[in-house]
Amino acid sequence: MSFVSEPTAPSIRTAVPGAATHRIKEDLDAVIDARTVQMVIDYDKSIGNYITDVDGNTYLDVYAQIASIPVGYNNPALLKAAKSPEIVSAPVNRPAVGNFPSHQWLALLREGLMRAAPPGCTQVFPAQSGSEANDLAFKAAFMRYRRQQRGDNPWTEYEQATAMKNQAPGSPDLAILSFRNSFHGRSFGSLSTTRSKPIHKLDIPAFKWPQATFPQLKYPLEAHIQENAKEEVRCLEEVKTIISSWHCPVAGIIVEPIQSEGGDNHASPAFFQQLQAITKEHGITLIVDEVQTGFAATGKFWAHEHWALPSPVDIVNFSKKAQTAGYFFSDENLRPDKAYRQFNTWMGDAARIIICNAVIDEILSNKLVEKNGSCWHGTI
Amino acid sequence: MSFVSEPTAPSIRTAVPGAATHRIKEDLDAVIDARTVQMVIDYDKSIGNYITDVDGNTYLDVYAQIASIPVGYNNPALLKAAKSPEIVSAPVNRPAVGNFPSHQWLALLREGLMRAAPPGCTQVFPAQSGSEANDLAFKAAFMRYRRQQRGDNPWTEYEQATAMKNQAPGSPDLAILSFRNSFHGRSFGSLSTTRSKPIHKLDIPAFKWPQATFPQLKYPLEAHIQENAKEEVRCLEEVKTIISSWHCPVAGIIVEPIQSEGGDNHASPAFFQQLQAITKEHGITLIVDEVQTGFAATGKFWAHEHWALPSPVDIVNFSKKAQTAGYFFSDENLRPDKAYRQFNTWMGDAARIIICNAVIDEILSNKLVEKNGSCWHGTI
Repeated sequence: MSFVSEPTAPSIRTAVPGAATHRIKEDLDAVIDARTVQMVIDYDKSIGNYITDVDGNTYLDVYAQIASIPVGYNNPALLKAAKSPEIVSAPVNRPAVGNFPSHQWLALLREGLMRAAPPGCTQVFPAQSGSEANDLAFKAAFMRYRRQQRGDNPWTEYEQATAMKNQAPGSPDLAILSFRNSFHGRSFGSLSTTRSKPIHKLDIPAFKWPQATFPQLKYPLEAHIQENAKEEVRCLEEVKTIISSWHCPVAGIIVEPIQSEGGDNHASPAFFQQLQAITKEHGITLIVDEVQTGFAATGKFWAHEHWALPSPVDIVNFSKKAQTAGYFFSDENLRPDKAYRQFNTWMGDAARIIICNAVIDEILSNKLVEKNGSCWHGTI
Repeated sequence: MSFVSEPTAPSIRTAVPGAATHRIKEDLDAVIDARTVQMVIDYDKSIGNYITDVDGNTYLDVYAQIASIPVGYNNPALLKAAKSPEIVSAPVNRPAVGNFPSHQWLALLREGLMRAAPPGCTQVFPAQSGSEANDLAFKAAFMRYRRQQRGDNPWTEYEQATAMKNQAPGSPDLAILSFRNSFHGRSFGSLSTTRSKPIHKLDIPAFKWPQATFPQLKYPLEAHIQENAKEEVRCLEEVKTIISSWHCPVAGIIVEPIQSEGGDNHASPAFFQQLQAITKEHGITLIVDEVQTGFAATGKFWAHEHWALPSPVDIVNFSKKAQTAGYFFSDENLRPDKAYRQFNTWMGDAARIIICNAVIDEILSNKLVEKNGSCWHGTI
């Protein structure tokens, strides 16, 4: 990775935000809600770790577009991918990829995206955002759960009729358990599992799904070994209690390896190992939300690789630094019993996967996993 | 619009699907669920209305990627946009556009996408799929509804605490009403309003939201004038009954101008005029789902323009032929009272909006609205 003209230091020339940002923000506000705009950026002038606004101020960017810029602004490898002949066709001839994939789709996945598949995950379902990936993962978990109950029995008329009315048993009361302070997105499914701030949730109807406490560890870890172990056991007991007492079955558990938007909260490999054991015991799908932690952020390609689990995670979700989104999965039963149950018009975006593949190239060829590992300060 | 080398007729050379499709489908199935794959396409060889598969068969494409190809394969204007310098930066330097829009964002929206805004709609919220657009529209409707009740009173501690637990009043029981046979998408919010087929809904938890009957008109229309008017009144009465008797308030109504995925079902302008009147009377947000019907498919740019409504629609959703997605809106109160309530990391995709703008250029410069109008066979 070489950014030949990357600045060596920030350079601030105006008040922040500057006059040009103010002016554009005001104009933007006439067509979109621009209250959240912090700065207007000249991306053509932003290079590597440095971002330059329309007022000519250059900043060292540690915010990275809400943790979404993986290998720097105007990365030469990504620019090359963005100018390739393959990427021109993708937006011009956008396919309903589930029905009519292009002749390049197989290579984009098998020789491309699947290089990032976590250990034991053999399949992928592409999506367009982290929220969508989580919603799709929940649907896979629900279908798998009902399949365990139904076996090979066909769908009954009554199930089908009640599903059309949003009623059980066709549309059953099933839950996804998440953890306090977690963030999993803002669509209706994912928002029902997000537990970080009222600003996300107020006034929005939610599924009556449960939350368990995420361990609150004390630092330095080596001075609180027994206390922290006890705290993790307490949280796991809470998970078990919810599973046995919630008003409806828990079909899935979603967890972040490191809680991010809701606080920088960690737990030990032992915690996650035991959490996986609980899900296996109850036929619950374990969904690891690596939207923030995936793609080489923690010294492994995926943060959950630090846990040394005895078997693969059921579902691993990705977005943000991947520049595309979706979920990898390891259990064949997470592919629904019938075609078209997990389906939509576009099912991802080939153009974004081409960029994602360039990101993976950069990570692998520059050994970024290994380099990040040397500055890893997790609890592991 | 000129496709100089567009075929003049289909040409079938092998069994369909052919051997190459079979082989690639089998390989694809190892990494994604490929049961839904009908043909593998060589998009580089597909031109205008004709699509060519990897076995060398060329078809006249009336399916158009689930109604998503607006102006033909390899349209020269779209190819030009896909090779422009602006589109290179968009995927390489993908912004969290709500926080750090590019210096081109304003022009992409104001001089670009907003040309497509329906009458009276002054603002847009970009998204990435029709399902996401619908979910976002529902959230806007819920926040607007609660704002009508709360007025300028601040959020209470109790509201905020209950929202974090997925409980009322913070996370209130509010509904979106939809119509039987409608299709509005597959995420958890939109799926709760989709009412077309059990394959979409079975085993997936749903909000307990209501459905009303969509008019079933008899044809030829001129021979069934009174009968059809009576049918529409019956359906509107059903809407009113649901609003007054449902277990929770109805905050929004979503309707397709022409039911598409769930059948080719039409209703008269009078029906939609009265539906709008009902929503206005009850402070309910009217959401017109133009994911299928928008972008010049019906002789108007938007199908709802045929209704000659006395005031603008609250929300109009778009996707598919737009090549991007989102919702336009007319009522200032659909912008939430606080920033960051309707927000996510990417909030759409500038690269897709660049292509959308080329589609709008093609529609306007080739007068496609006017030309489609001459073959319009709706009920209007």
